[in-house]
Amino acid sequence: MLLCDIGNTSYHFLDDERDYKESVATFDPQTITEDVYYISVNSSVSKRLAAAPNWINIETFLDRSDYYESMGVDRVVACEGISDGVIVDAGSAITVDVVKKSHFMGGFIYPGINAMASTYKTISPALAYSFNFDIAIQKLPKNSQDAISYGFLKLLKSEVDSYRLPIILTGGDAEHLKALFPEAKIDKLLLFESMKKLIIKL
Amino acid sequence: MLLCDIGNTSYHFLDDERDYKESVATFDPQTITEDVYYISVNSSVSKRLAAAPNWINIETFLDRSDYYESMGVDRVVACEGISDGVIVDAGSAITVDVVKKSHFMGGFIYPGINAMASTYKTISPALAYSFNFDIAIQKLPKNSQDAISYGFLKLLKSEVDSYRLPIILTGGDAEHLKALFPEAKIDKLLLFESMKKLIIKL
Repeated sequence: MLLCDIGNTSYHFLDDERDYKESVATFDPQTITEDVYYISVNSSVSKRLAAAPNWINIETFLDRSDYYESMGVDRVVACEGISDGVIVDAGSAITVDVVKKSHFMGGFIYPGINAMASTYKTISPALAYSFNFDIAIQKLPKNSQDAISYGFLKLLKSEVDSYRLPIILTGGDAEHLKALFPEAKIDKLLLFESMKKLIIKL
Repeated sequence: MLLCDIGNTSYHFLDDERDYKESVATFDPQTITEDVYYISVNSSVSKRLAAAPNWINIETFLDRSDYYESMGVDRVVACEGISDGVIVDAGSAITVDVVKKSHFMGGFIYPGINAMASTYKTISPALAYSFNFDIAIQKLPKNSQDAISYGFLKLLKSEVDSYRLPIILTGGDAEHLKALFPEAKIDKLLLFESMKKLIIKL
């Protein structure tokens, strides 16, 4: 079975053996002739694929009644894959979604690591530090690097920890957040596992 | 008495009657002949003023031993003005500093309102919402505008509230945060009040 998660910049595939990426800019989906089950947050790719009979959009079969209309299909599908937990998906944005007893409780969107680093740098060259992911969060910072790291990371940690649910880290930057959430499970293929569960139900 | 707080873009004056601003780009400090007590985070203006005998740099007289070296003098002076509280200074950055029994406990730096709005917009046009400052923080969001507002504002609120100290809102964007911190006091002249206390001690 071939699965694909399409974002703004890449096609992320999972076949029976491995996951790999292709660039949205250069990849031609018509080169694939077998059936592909996909989700897409990229509207121009979605339009193109609607005309390809072997590309099957999982979103079409999704019951979205528990979610809100403008919520990205990737977040919806990830939530469908768990029964209780907090999904922290760290990419260009960090989306945090809470699922309890298989119901979506809501979620929020926080800037991703690169976006936040650029933000501090843009505010002032004096804030152009890289983040300290091993920051001691028990006490308030007394140096500039920790002052911005705490602002970005400790505030996120406090919120996520407050739900008292298992934490699942996913997305391209999941590893960076592991030190902040030592109890969390890293599951970079969460979305694909969830897609498989949905396909079985079809 | 004439007081001045010099930032990256403006001279912020307080005379006996009112406060007003002049642009760093166009204002000539030599047009003032009376004594001016000032602080400055603008190093090029500081250099220029060092040669002007009637411009008196308060930083010279400041005991900074309780603070860290790279901490902006405006934050230090604001902290010197209170004995117990959290100072939330909302400008291009939002600095949060905690003072207990007249000692600086530490602080952190969070992006300001405009910076954070730009950040979300840059991540994706789908996140180009203005913030909802009246967001209901008791439950997790189920719409896009609240999902970004919660990410930015609720996380800040939880952290600031956790100190269980009086909250003082200052800086150009203080009013925007009032709905988020209904118990807080807005004091846009905190820095000047603190400067006056320091001058009296000289």
